[in-house]
Amino acid sequence: MAEHTPVSPRQVGEAVQRLREGSPLVQSLTNIVVAQWTANVLLAAGAAPAMVDNPHEAGLFAQVAGGVLVNTGTPYDDTTAAMRAAVQGAAQTGTPWVLDPVAAGGLPWRTQVASELIGVHAPAIVRGNASEVSGLLGGLGGRGVDSAARPEEVLEQARSLARDHGTVVAVSGPVDHLTDGERLVRVANGHELMTRVTGVGCALGALMAGFAAVCEDRLVAATAATALLCVAAERAAAATRGPGSFAVALLDELALVTPDEVAEAVRLS
Amino acid sequence: MAEHTPVSPRQVGEAVQRLREGSPLVQSLTNIVVAQWTANVLLAAGAAPAMVDNPHEAGLFAQVAGGVLVNTGTPYDDTTAAMRAAVQGAAQTGTPWVLDPVAAGGLPWRTQVASELIGVHAPAIVRGNASEVSGLLGGLGGRGVDSAARPEEVLEQARSLARDHGTVVAVSGPVDHLTDGERLVRVANGHELMTRVTGVGCALGALMAGFAAVCEDRLVAATAATALLCVAAERAAAATRGPGSFAVALLDELALVTPDEVAEAVRLS
Amino acid sequence: MAEHTPVSPRQVGEAVQRLREGSPLVQSLTNIVVAQWTANVLLAAGAAPAMVDNPHEAGLFAQVAGGVLVNTGTPYDDTTAAMRAAVQGAAQTGTPWVLDPVAAGGLPWRTQVASELIGVHAPAIVRGNASEVSGLLGGLGGRGVDSAARPEEVLEQARSLARDHGTVVAVSGPVDHLTDGERLVRVANGHELMTRVTGVGCALGALMAGFAAVCEDRLVAATAATALLCVAAERAAAATRGPGSFAVALLDELALVTPDEVAEAVRLS
Repeated sequence: MAEHTPVSPRQVGEAVQRLREGSPLVQSLTNIVVAQWTANVLLAAGAAPAMVDNPHEAGLFAQVAGGVLVNTGTPYDDTTAAMRAAVQGAAQTGTPWVLDPVAAGGLPWRTQVASELIGVHAPAIVRGNASEVSGLLGGLGGRGVDSAARPEEVLEQARSLARDHGTVVAVSGPVDHLTDGERLVRVANGHELMTRVTGVGCALGALMAGFAAVCEDRLVAATAATALLCVAAERAAAATRGPGSFAVALLDELALVTPDEVAEAVRLS
Repeated sequence: MAEHTPVSPRQVGEAVQRLREGSPLVQSLTNIVVAQWTANVLLAAGAAPAMVDNPHEAGLFAQVAGGVLVNTGTPYDDTTAAMRAAVQGAAQTGTPWVLDPVAAGGLPWRTQVASELIGVHAPAIVRGNASEVSGLLGGLGGRGVDSAARPEEVLEQARSLARDHGTVVAVSGPVDHLTDGERLVRVANGHELMTRVTGVGCALGALMAGFAAVCEDRLVAATAATALLCVAAERAAAATRGPGSFAVALLDELALVTPDEVAEAVRLS
Repeated sequence: MAEHTPVSPRQVGEAVQRLREGSPLVQSLTNIVVAQWTANVLLAAGAAPAMVDNPHEAGLFAQVAGGVLVNTGTPYDDTTAAMRAAVQGAAQTGTPWVLDPVAAGGLPWRTQVASELIGVHAPAIVRGNASEVSGLLGGLGGRGVDSAARPEEVLEQARSLARDHGTVVAVSGPVDHLTDGERLVRVANGHELMTRVTGVGCALGALMAGFAAVCEDRLVAATAATALLCVAAERAAAATRGPGSFAVALLDELALVTPDEVAEAVRLS
């Protein structure tokens, strides 16, 4: 079955291998809740995190980074100015950037911030849950849905967003749905404990920025990031009692799982 | 004995049950040190954390949150403006908010910030250690004590603060003392390792905001939060070597302990 | 051999003992990525962390702190103003402060910020990796090196920086090199996993601020901090699977290792 999907398990394994070998520099402009966790996830997976999120330096750094993450979890005037600078810097050098529009739709100010960033320069990948993807589309003048809990419910919105902006849209949920507007990949891995630890979704966005630095095909990049995190989570959950020990084991597994093991365990459709 | 206390173990167990079932949305305006930890404690306990702490959105979000935490651990001009907006928003909708006046008394600026917030709209609960409660009262024009290490030493100050502002005051220490100005509850649970991990007290304030969302009687809310955290800490300490493994086990136990187990283990007087 | 080194294992053990007994108050103006981790490392080691990093209070607090850490990991306009206030406050009372010039050299703005802080009042200790020490020297008008991966490559720059500013310079790497411009100490402890967890170097800077509060001789302070962290890391690595469990065990070991065990395990030259 796997050979009929737009992204194959073999491509996923090769991408994980490239991340480990390339150790791309990932600039993360993210929120105060998950900054440490995000850096540790990137380090465990084999990437090199750098949190340069002030307006004086963010644009300059985006020009030397391998990938840039912009996450709107706790935006401030100062850090949103840095986000704009980072996206402009990324545009100049063609550095791929990933948008994680946390709480888009629910909160008007950050929805506008996220929409404006897309207008500056299209992201390589947009990652969010169903309601964020729908909310972001609404902020861009498109038609969102009233409320959505599962990726399946916003699939048309995701395709539309991807086509209109030439980006990959990755919708997280029990089964992750990823599309570039034409192709669709579903990743059916993961574990319920991923929702009991803060920042697992945010860390996925950061991983996507790392994979985008080493994969020309951004649908492959987004799929590989999802596969690595979800397969590591399944392995971690097998040996833990609750959310505290799960988070610790997830970092261990991100470092220990091999590219072949990810390719073997990923369930694509 | 328990049946003669203002809050009973049965009420504590029922409150924990309500927190798990209601999964209240807790807006946390807290410090950069404990933001991740606070979110993970809330998630483990069964609440839903949201860190909306910028002036553009904090007031709006406080109107839809179940409870709001304001913690003055690392205040900045930008985030204190957000705190004011959040308290004003909470006042409009009657959303209960919890004040954790970190380092009040010791540092004049934040003492003034905390005092002004109380003036905007009275918090449902004030949580601090003995010197913070005393320092906050001093900032409000009352008479603090020169120095205080134990809750017993500021009991009169706590009662006065509670009565003057129609709030519950929870003073943390070896034995926690909680009062609404009339009633007094002591919780004699906990473990010394709670003082070797940063943010355990801050997380208690966040849990109180969660319980305040599901308990009309705020003395019950504050007592249940204290009981849940301290009982989980006792269980965690039994299986750990030092502060690192204790913090991990505490998150596990917050998720695993049942309402009945909390009610059984809590030592109220 | 140890008796011929400028700092002896016995001095290291005594310094660890003093840190535990004195529990110095360490004001940390650090970055959003490592704030929690830094506080937990200080608490585990026996010091008392306080993150006072706003311009209204930082100068006042530096006058009562035992030591001050300034780390330029995620500088903003607001927090760099606080850094200046803290250094000015430290200057008034002679409070020792430690500069951790994260990414100095690579990013012009923060290099200038760090250079200006040194001009306000010389730090007791500068801690960084090889490229940061070289970059900082370049920012101060000295001659850095084009690129440097190992402390040995910047030893002359470190000596020059130390002599010019009357400070101790600690260069982290596989073998840490510490100098006051005349004396040189090498610490050959540690583990590769220290590079797979974010903020281990940042935490070392914080520990140095704690040791500077209890050790007149700052070369002893910097050496003892390095020894404690690296010996604890070796013990932690022995019992862990990957970076997640390593970070947890490191906090445990920082609390459990005895002064005598540090003195016995440290490899000085």
